[in-house]
Amino acid sequence: MNYYEEALKLHSENKGKISVTSKVKLQDRDDLSTAYTPGVAEPCKEIAKDRKNVYKYTAKSNLVGVVSDGTAVLGLGNIGAEAAIPVMEGKAILFKQFGNVDAFPICLDTKDTEEIIKAVKQIAPVFGGINLEDIASPKCFEVERRLEEELDIPVFHDDQHGTAIVVTAALMNALKVVGKQIDEIRVVLNGPGSAGTAIIKMMLTAGVKHITACDENGILYKDRGVGIVDHKKMLCDITNLEDQRGTLADALVGADVFVGVSVGGALKPEMIRTMNANPIVFAMANPTPEIMYDEAMAAGVKVMGTGRSDFPNQINNVLAFPGIFRGALDAGARDINYEMKLAAAQAIAELVEPGMLCAEYIIPSALDPRVAKHVAEKVAEAAVKSGAVRK
Amino acid sequence: MNYYEEALKLHSENKGKISVTSKVKLQDRDDLSTAYTPGVAEPCKEIAKDRKNVYKYTAKSNLVGVVSDGTAVLGLGNIGAEAAIPVMEGKAILFKQFGNVDAFPICLDTKDTEEIIKAVKQIAPVFGGINLEDIASPKCFEVERRLEEELDIPVFHDDQHGTAIVVTAALMNALKVVGKQIDEIRVVLNGPGSAGTAIIKMMLTAGVKHITACDENGILYKDRGVGIVDHKKMLCDITNLEDQRGTLADALVGADVFVGVSVGGALKPEMIRTMNANPIVFAMANPTPEIMYDEAMAAGVKVMGTGRSDFPNQINNVLAFPGIFRGALDAGARDINYEMKLAAAQAIAELVEPGMLCAEYIIPSALDPRVAKHVAEKVAEAAVKSGAVRK
Repeated sequence: MNYYEEALKLHSENKGKISVTSKVKLQDRDDLSTAYTPGVAEPCKEIAKDRKNVYKYTAKSNLVGVVSDGTAVLGLGNIGAEAAIPVMEGKAILFKQFGNVDAFPICLDTKDTEEIIKAVKQIAPVFGGINLEDIASPKCFEVERRLEEELDIPVFHDDQHGTAIVVTAALMNALKVVGKQIDEIRVVLNGPGSAGTAIIKMMLTAGVKHITACDENGILYKDRGVGIVDHKKMLCDITNLEDQRGTLADALVGADVFVGVSVGGALKPEMIRTMNANPIVFAMANPTPEIMYDEAMAAGVKVMGTGRSDFPNQINNVLAFPGIFRGALDAGARDINYEMKLAAAQAIAELVEPGMLCAEYIIPSALDPRVAKHVAEKVAEAAVKSGAVRK
Repeated sequence: MNYYEEALKLHSENKGKISVTSKVKLQDRDDLSTAYTPGVAEPCKEIAKDRKNVYKYTAKSNLVGVVSDGTAVLGLGNIGAEAAIPVMEGKAILFKQFGNVDAFPICLDTKDTEEIIKAVKQIAPVFGGINLEDIASPKCFEVERRLEEELDIPVFHDDQHGTAIVVTAALMNALKVVGKQIDEIRVVLNGPGSAGTAIIKMMLTAGVKHITACDENGILYKDRGVGIVDHKKMLCDITNLEDQRGTLADALVGADVFVGVSVGGALKPEMIRTMNANPIVFAMANPTPEIMYDEAMAAGVKVMGTGRSDFPNQINNVLAFPGIFRGALDAGARDINYEMKLAAAQAIAELVEPGMLCAEYIIPSALDPRVAKHVAEKVAEAAVKSGAVRK
C-alpha cells in the first residue's frame, strides 16, 4: 500500500477527517424548544448560578482540545498552524475511536509562548482537558507548566508524556524478559528534547536510578557549559549522578538500556557490543530509527522497540493518550499527575499476558481494543487515590 | 410540554449536545497509516507548500466557529462564557441539522474587545467561517468589523444579521399582503441595539427610504445629545431624514411598519391606532413581545410577526444562518456582504408560494427543510456575482 497517495486521497475525498454531530434529535418544534430556545435558557441559568454545572449540562465533561502552534509537527518541523491541522484532526479521531473522547483541533496562529498560554486559557471554558501537541522544545515545557498551574482542567503534552508512558511500559516488560531489576539498570537516553526529558522523569518515577542523557555534544553534565541551557540544566541535576563525561559511545559502555529519541543512525553496532549482556534498545527516531532492527539484533540486542509498525514492539502514543484522558475525564481530575502516568504505564504493561511475554511482544498492539479501557480504569483509580480529583 | 424541565433533562442526560466524530474509518493498521502516521505527513506537506490546500485536505472548508464571550446571552445578559455554552452547542447542532455545516462552540473567557479579536484570529486556522453570537452591543460592532477586515474567512454576527435578514424577508411578503411599496413605507424601529442597527441597514439596502429609530429616550436625532453615542451617532446619519423629534408614540403617527427589538409591552394599542391603514408589526422582544398577538390584532394590525413559535409568523434566525454559511462555504466566499444577505432574505421570502401567502403565513416555518438549501444556492450565486469569492 502506498500510504502517501492513499493519504492524500483519503484527506481530499473526505475534506478532512472530523465532523461535529448532534447527540440529540432535532425533528420537531418540541425538539427545537428543548435543545434551543426557549428551553436552553434553563441549563444556562443553572451554570450561571453554579459554574460547576457546566460539567453536568454541556459537552465539556467529554471534550478535549488538541492544541498546536505547528512548530514541531511530526518530523516536518515548523510548518505552521494550517499545515498542522491534518495531524490534529488525526489525533481527534484517535481520541474518539480508542477512548470515546470528543476532541477538537485548535491550531494557533501564534508561536509566542505567552500568547499560546493566553489563547488556550481564553478558549478553555468549553473543554474538559487540553492535549498539547507538536509544540517545539523548550517552549513546550513553559506552556505546559503554566497551563497546568493556571487551568483547573487536565493539561497533557502528549509528545512528552505519551511517549514516556509507553516506553516506560515497554521497559517494565523488557526487564522481565531479560531478568533485570529496574533499580539496578543503567539507562542511556539520546536526544533530551521534549520527549526525552519526559522519558527521563518518568523512568526515574518508575524506579530507575541511573540515567545518563546525551545530546549532540555528548554526555550532559553540570560543568559542560556548551548547550547546557533551559531544561538541560535541570536534567544535569537528575541524571548522570556519577558526573561522567564523554560521548554517547562512552556513556553506553556497561549500560543496560539505550533509549533514542534523536536521529536515524545515531546508534552503531560497535556501541551495542560495549553494553552489558542482553541489551535493551528503544530506537524511536521516525521514520528511520537510531539503528535498524536487523542490525541491532545482529549486534546482540535482546529486546528492541521502535516507533514503526513494521518491526516488533511499536512504541505508539495511541496506547496511552485515549485511555489517559478517558480516565482523567471520568474521574473528574484537575490534572494528570505522575501517579496517574505511572498507573497508565503499568496498565499498558500488564495487558501483555505472562504466558505471551517475549522479546518480540513486550507491548500490546496499537489496535488492541482492551488498552484504552484498562488504562482509563487504572488512571481514574490513581486520580482518586492521589487526590487529583476536582472538588 | 414543560420546556424547562425537559431542557434540563435533555442537557444532563446527554451531557450537552455536540460530539466530534470521524468521517473516515479506523479499523486496521492501513487505516491508521493513512489517517495518521506516516501518511498524514503528506497533506501536511501539501498545505505547508501552499496554504490554500488547507481547504482541500482538512475540515476547514465545512467548519464554522460559533464564538461568544457570554455577555449578551438570550435575554439573560452577561452570564459568562461557561453559562453561554448550551446556547452555542444548540447553534452548532442547528448548523448541522439545517445546513450540514460542522460548527463548534468557542466560549471565550474574556470580555475585552481587543482580546476577543486576537483570540478569534489566533484560532481561525481550522475554521472556514466565524459566527459571532451573544456578544454585547456596542462591542459586537467593533469585533465584527475588525474580524471581517483582518480575516480572510466569512465573519457573521448572527444576532445582528440573522435577525435582520429574516425580518426583511418577512417585510417583503407582508408588503405584498397589504399592497404597499417598499420605497414608500415609513418604518419605525424600537430598540436600536445590535439587531436593531442591522435591521435598519438591511432594510435600507432592501429599498426602504424612511426609517425612524427610537430608544428609551425617544426618537434618535443628531442634536439630541442624550445617549447619542457609539453606533447611534451613525444611525442618526441614515435614519430620521426629516429630523423628527419626540417619543415612540410620536414617531408612529402615520407609520406603516413597527419593528420592535426592545422590551415586552413597549407597543401600546393606542399607538397602533395612529399608524397608517393596514399596519405591519414585528414585535420580536423575547419571551414577551412588545405587544401580544391578540391585543395587536384587536388594535387593527394587519400582519404581525414575533419571535415566538406559538403565534403566526415566527421570525427565527434558523431560517437564515445555516443556509447563509452553507452558501458562503460552498462558494468559497471571503465574507458575507450585503448582496449575499439580501439574496438570503429574497430566498426566504420567495419560498412562501404566492397562492399560500396571507397575513398568517408570510414566512416559512423554522422546520421547513427547503429553506437552507434554497438560501444557500442564492447566497452562493450572490457571492460569485458580487466578487466575494476567495481567489
